[in-house]
Amino acid sequence: MTAPEEGPRPHPLALLTDAELQAASALVKELVATQEPGLKIRFKNISLAEPPKSLLLPYLDAEAAGVSQSARPFVPRCVSCIWSADNERRVTESVVDLQTGLEVKRDSIAKGQHGSNDRAELRRIGELILNDPMVLDAIKKLNLPEDTVVQCDPWMYGADKLCAEDTHKYIQALLYARAPGNHPDSNQYSYPLPISPRYDIFEAKMIAIDKIATGGKEDGMKYDTAGEHPMAHCIPGEYHPDLLPPPRTDLKPLHVVQPEGASFTVTDGNCVSWQKWRFRVGFNYREGMTVHDVRYDGRPVFYRLSVSEMTVPYGDPRSPVHRKQAFDLGDAGAGSCANQLSLGCDCLGSIFYFSGWLNGEDGEAVAAENVICLHEQDGGVGWKHTNMRTNHPSVVRARNLILQSIITVGNYEYIFAWCFMQNGNVELETRATGILSTQLIDAGKTSDWGNVVAPGVLAPNHQHLFSLRIDPMMDGQDNSVLMEESIPVPYSEEENPFSNAWRVIKTPIESSGPSDAKPETNRVFKIVNEAVKNKVSGNPVGYKLVPQPCQLILAGKDSVARRRARFAEHHLWVTKYRDGDLWAGGRWTNQSLKEIDGVFDYASRNEGVRNADLVVWLTYGMTHNPRVEDFPVMPVEITTISLKPADFFERNPALDVPQSTQAVNKSVLAVNPIPTVSKSFKGECNC
Amino acid sequence: MTAPEEGPRPHPLALLTDAELQAASALVKELVATQEPGLKIRFKNISLAEPPKSLLLPYLDAEAAGVSQSARPFVPRCVSCIWSADNERRVTESVVDLQTGLEVKRDSIAKGQHGSNDRAELRRIGELILNDPMVLDAIKKLNLPEDTVVQCDPWMYGADKLCAEDTHKYIQALLYARAPGNHPDSNQYSYPLPISPRYDIFEAKMIAIDKIATGGKEDGMKYDTAGEHPMAHCIPGEYHPDLLPPPRTDLKPLHVVQPEGASFTVTDGNCVSWQKWRFRVGFNYREGMTVHDVRYDGRPVFYRLSVSEMTVPYGDPRSPVHRKQAFDLGDAGAGSCANQLSLGCDCLGSIFYFSGWLNGEDGEAVAAENVICLHEQDGGVGWKHTNMRTNHPSVVRARNLILQSIITVGNYEYIFAWCFMQNGNVELETRATGILSTQLIDAGKTSDWGNVVAPGVLAPNHQHLFSLRIDPMMDGQDNSVLMEESIPVPYSEEENPFSNAWRVIKTPIESSGPSDAKPETNRVFKIVNEAVKNKVSGNPVGYKLVPQPCQLILAGKDSVARRRARFAEHHLWVTKYRDGDLWAGGRWTNQSLKEIDGVFDYASRNEGVRNADLVVWLTYGMTHNPRVEDFPVMPVEITTISLKPADFFERNPALDVPQSTQAVNKSVLAVNPIPTVSKSFKGECNC
Repeated sequence: MTAPEEGPRPHPLALLTDAELQAASALVKELVATQEPGLKIRFKNISLAEPPKSLLLPYLDAEAAGVSQSARPFVPRCVSCIWSADNERRVTESVVDLQTGLEVKRDSIAKGQHGSNDRAELRRIGELILNDPMVLDAIKKLNLPEDTVVQCDPWMYGADKLCAEDTHKYIQALLYARAPGNHPDSNQYSYPLPISPRYDIFEAKMIAIDKIATGGKEDGMKYDTAGEHPMAHCIPGEYHPDLLPPPRTDLKPLHVVQPEGASFTVTDGNCVSWQKWRFRVGFNYREGMTVHDVRYDGRPVFYRLSVSEMTVPYGDPRSPVHRKQAFDLGDAGAGSCANQLSLGCDCLGSIFYFSGWLNGEDGEAVAAENVICLHEQDGGVGWKHTNMRTNHPSVVRARNLILQSIITVGNYEYIFAWCFMQNGNVELETRATGILSTQLIDAGKTSDWGNVVAPGVLAPNHQHLFSLRIDPMMDGQDNSVLMEESIPVPYSEEENPFSNAWRVIKTPIESSGPSDAKPETNRVFKIVNEAVKNKVSGNPVGYKLVPQPCQLILAGKDSVARRRARFAEHHLWVTKYRDGDLWAGGRWTNQSLKEIDGVFDYASRNEGVRNADLVVWLTYGMTHNPRVEDFPVMPVEITTISLKPADFFERNPALDVPQSTQAVNKSVLAVNPIPTVSKSFKGECNC
Repeated sequence: MTAPEEGPRPHPLALLTDAELQAASALVKELVATQEPGLKIRFKNISLAEPPKSLLLPYLDAEAAGVSQSARPFVPRCVSCIWSADNERRVTESVVDLQTGLEVKRDSIAKGQHGSNDRAELRRIGELILNDPMVLDAIKKLNLPEDTVVQCDPWMYGADKLCAEDTHKYIQALLYARAPGNHPDSNQYSYPLPISPRYDIFEAKMIAIDKIATGGKEDGMKYDTAGEHPMAHCIPGEYHPDLLPPPRTDLKPLHVVQPEGASFTVTDGNCVSWQKWRFRVGFNYREGMTVHDVRYDGRPVFYRLSVSEMTVPYGDPRSPVHRKQAFDLGDAGAGSCANQLSLGCDCLGSIFYFSGWLNGEDGEAVAAENVICLHEQDGGVGWKHTNMRTNHPSVVRARNLILQSIITVGNYEYIFAWCFMQNGNVELETRATGILSTQLIDAGKTSDWGNVVAPGVLAPNHQHLFSLRIDPMMDGQDNSVLMEESIPVPYSEEENPFSNAWRVIKTPIESSGPSDAKPETNRVFKIVNEAVKNKVSGNPVGYKLVPQPCQLILAGKDSVARRRARFAEHHLWVTKYRDGDLWAGGRWTNQSLKEIDGVFDYASRNEGVRNADLVVWLTYGMTHNPRVEDFPVMPVEITTISLKPADFFERNPALDVPQSTQAVNKSVLAVNPIPTVSKSFKGECNC
């Protein structure tokens, strides 16, 4: 453990240290002990409380202008501690100032709202459920083989109908069995039990054991039709290498070798410089990886980039599984679920790792090692042109910088990777992998609500809908969003006599609110600074964003599933910036009955967003109707969002990338069996 | 030059050899000399005439079943020679059988249709135009500096209005100047001349010199408003490294090293085996790279994959530039324009090159060296799951096999790359790069029809619309296409009481015709074999295709631009297979007035395509309203089409890929500045 530092104050965006984290929890403990002696509290989540933009931005601008650290404006260093008491009935956020030792803000969540499911809580409840007599009795009735080991995935409860605002906090548990042989890495999702215990966290007791329907469309999709041995037709469906036959042997090694090391530098703990890009890396329990103060050649581009939320609603209408709807960030936390990345497993080449600190329930610091990695990748040809007169090719390869984090949320994995490019693009790649959430289906039956991916295993249809939060600063804070569409010009003898013309119609977004993708008009959203014109084209400088026209949330208009995730009703939202507006699905998503203080509410303030400090929220994702190929472990499903300069620069910013040459690249010729003749009309490479 | 081979007959899909090509042209010359003594002919394009499916498929099935070459069915080896006479007034295809020496087919193209612009023709006409007195006089009037070098891009004429069916074959030339200093690799597209000579190929003479408008929207977009020195405001816009300042110096080398070589093998000249995949590579002047007889673990998947056509209509309505509409395959030829790829410039790692043969106008063989490359790439994490109970991660990296070809069509470059994946995906990545086609604009003006990307340089709006031809054989030839959509189930107390359910509605396509993308219903097209059911799910085995919902052709309904490219009116077409149905935009696209014998006509036969030998055609691409960043050379714009197994396999086919381990991958740790504490709740990698 490092002691609180003496000397220069940390950068306001420095990653929270273990010392800071523990100093903050000690302050809160002291405070609570004074105010409410004897109150037993648990720390749920501790993270850096990012400074308000009005304080942070002048600091960052001073830094970018080369002002020395001691001469930059003073910015307080604060920490957010979310703690609970009384079996989660009370959940409170205390923000403490590390320098003054004062609690500068306290918020308690309202009745009917619930805190996230933190890891300590889930672990404890999972064990309680498995040892509950009612549960043990229900398992016994399934007549599983004697030595079967049953395991419990405690799930966020999701939500029922909008019956009561004043809910207790619940857990719905999904139960599975290990395959015969009882290997600890056996894939339990091949053996789903048709029962789901419901646990009341407030009351600390089991409420009920719900039956999960196992019927198919052949029998009207009834409940427990399979008799005394409902899981007898399940078979092992393993993915762990210890449980599989030896792997294929015809894959030869491929190394990425960087003899002079990586081209990036990391200074001051979390400040990354690479190929004219410069940004800071953040990490917190909820969003996981965040990106701050992104500048290109000194020009401000993005103030903050983050995945704000995701929702995964399932499509089986049969209670209790209708409730399954995860908000993986708000209910669990991408940082809390971040993988410890391993050298040579998750990336190739020269890898830099960022570590962070999370907390235990006593407020102690828990290392989150290697939760973000940074490395370069070859991106194929970046640009090429061959002059047909001289036959001289000019070609540069694209080198990309990847900032990656991988999270495991129970059965599923998500891989988030920011990609910074020499051509000015900033892209977010999301890969969905891991194991499908499964439920039992009777032998020989099929379902409208999912696909049978292994004997007895129904993988229900579901959606993954993410919200990407983009806080831009295109050459400054006052930005606008222009919606551009390509619209055919009507035929007229004067203007369009050959009917081949279209116009690019630009519609500025004046007020906060939603918009949607419209690929049939080539709808593009440009985030621009109207006050700064590109010297070449005369257009305002900016970046463009093509929203992915993904299918939006399918749950019905008045359903609780949809009310909880109003962000997923539209592809794009523009809101006026306010400190703390970070959560597309609302601040407290767990077991919510509707989205409160989410992007819908931010947008409903109906504020002016033209030439303003604005935030863009992009909904992207997919409807996932599982394939058999997605089991027992799912090949990555990849989706990419691109932010591309659009008249931000005065030329291709990758123009000065060195040519791609064999002298540097050292590729190897395999074999070329076709004989060469001397006469060739094609040019030679100039490398 | 290799002599015609003795011994075993070549595989019917073997790449055409130089000896075969010359034997074929010699046969045609002999035939013509006999039939029409004294007739002077030119060879435009010579290529393998692929055998009819009724002959080829039994051969391929016998091969896949392990039948020795000599015992497989006999398939004739034929060559297609397209030759012209009488100044292109006559264009004829002769197909000759190399064994019998007979002409087995002869087709002459109809009046009003025109052959492609072959390279010899373009080169000759380009020179004629630049030396034409009328052109020299028009250039003189532009008052360019004394030593200015003017260059000519002879373009496909495109088409005017539908005035006459019986057109002559024309060339419209775009003229540009080299920058002062006169370097041969100067970027001429920075100096576009405001005149366009029109040349009549039939009559072998200049017809007219058209003026190109240089006005902006400020003056009603008039013609020649700029007075005596219309190009005086142009400045050099160079991309060639010799003409640029020294490149950036902070990019460190990155090598892909494969110490044991590549994992693929190439046998029999063009048969590729890799990771359970097996296919043959083809090459011809028109489509360039083609892929044949794709099988996975012996199971037939695709009979033939190819990019069939592309059209690039421009959106400036001012004559003559309204005519600009390239069909790069039909008018020019992706094979004819294929780059000679260079080791270490276009790819990293262990590279295998395929070469082919093209022809000169006398029928001689011309080497097309290294026109296709084959190599492996790391594809990042392929699948991963961490067991939260044991903290054991299982992770495999995706290794991809890339088959790539790059074409230069005048100013533009396209990079086509087929990607074969361990998870069963087959993907086509298309990268657009190169230089924008430009025209002059007066100083200080802007245009509705494009963007000013450099002083004096207007880059007009345009579209790139490709047609991907997919000839499937999902476990056999009789396939069906199912359109699947995810549709919410209406609320009902019985079936959907929580309004969270949707159904996947499957609509089989019964008759040949068009379909469109519909992302709002998550519309997916599955190519299936209804007679072969997946043993796990009971669904027919197949592959799915999500059409890219690109903006379709913008030209007006009755415009000639649209009539020429009816394939671009819809995202997807399903047709019944017929030999020779290969050309989405028609057999003869050059200067066409409408699409004849293209996919619209194939589909209009209104044939049954359920449980039939069918072909799927996918239209993809983009509306490209240029950015300043796209000049002077354009960063790659990437679009990817994925064909993914959907219940084709009985599990994730990448399940047996070896785990990703540091022992094999040998990554290198950069630095990790955050101290480690002993207490960690995260697992260790099992590698």
